[in-house]
Amino acid sequence: MRVNRGVEWAAHCAALLAALPQDVSVPAATLAEFHDLPAPYLAKQLQALVRAGVLSATTGPRGGFRLARPAAEITLLRMVEAVDGAASPYECREIRQRGRGALPPEDCRDRCVLAAKMAAAHEAWRQTLADVTLADVLAEIPPTAPARTRSILAGGRSDAS
Amino acid sequence: MRVNRGVEWAAHCAALLAALPQDVSVPAATLAEFHDLPAPYLAKQLQALVRAGVLSATTGPRGGFRLARPAAEITLLRMVEAVDGAASPYECREIRQRGRGALPPEDCRDRCVLAAKMAAAHEAWRQTLADVTLADVLAEIPPTAPARTRSILAGGRSDAS
Repeated sequence: MRVNRGVEWAAHCAALLAALPQDVSVPAATLAEFHDLPAPYLAKQLQALVRAGVLSATTGPRGGFRLARPAAEITLLRMVEAVDGAASPYECREIRQRGRGALPPEDCRDRCVLAAKMAAAHEAWRQTLADVTLADVLAEIPPTAPARTRSILAGGRSDAS
Repeated sequence: MRVNRGVEWAAHCAALLAALPQDVSVPAATLAEFHDLPAPYLAKQLQALVRAGVLSATTGPRGGFRLARPAAEITLLRMVEAVDGAASPYECREIRQRGRGALPPEDCRDRCVLAAKMAAAHEAWRQTLADVTLADVLAEIPPTAPARTRSILAGGRSDAS
């Protein structure tokens, strides 16, 4: 069970943007350079965040990416599922209905117990990520980090987004 | 994020064995046939359950697999991790320490906030699976299923394991 490594990239980039004034957009290449990430792959993750309503893409000389909404309204779950998909990690193939021991259809009206338990675990995972916003993340990163981010990406402007 | 499909096979086989008298061992080929599973791959998952202390392998003419301990002492987590591994699905590559925006080492003594949140979600997933035992699963499957299992795999003997 592995989460797409792009989740780390996307979440870090969103956290960087959350530290900037709201009107500052950052080009994909600049974001890639910030943490030495592979630009073409990062661009794909950034577009996924745009589709999920996490980021807005702006064009023009000062174009790039910025948050599409306040950091307090962006959950970690939304970012993770934007990049990694929302499918349950456990796929029930209804093996209980196969083979010599197959259960009859009338015993299979309810979801397979094992599938239900695995789904409950996935839901607990989702809920934990849904309870964390980008604002929470920003509040817990090293206190010097946001100022450094603003210094590098926004000429030091500190009017928070 | 995908759980190894062998998890479904292994958990179903353990649930079958949990319905049998404790002294009944079932050959891997018979278990494979029960739900029409690919025998060589299933054998690998059964061995993983043995290594995890979920099953015991016995040899001889009546040999095969049986539960290594009472069903109430076998959690779904133990079976899932036996087959799929126990690694966290999120691998933190410390990108915060890379590139033009790298944080200095003194700001990275604590674990990356994003890694900590992802670990908390994984822990919630694990806890949900740790709270479910094979006995719980057996109590929730269709009531006719254990008798059918015993009829096919244990000649109908019903002294519970």
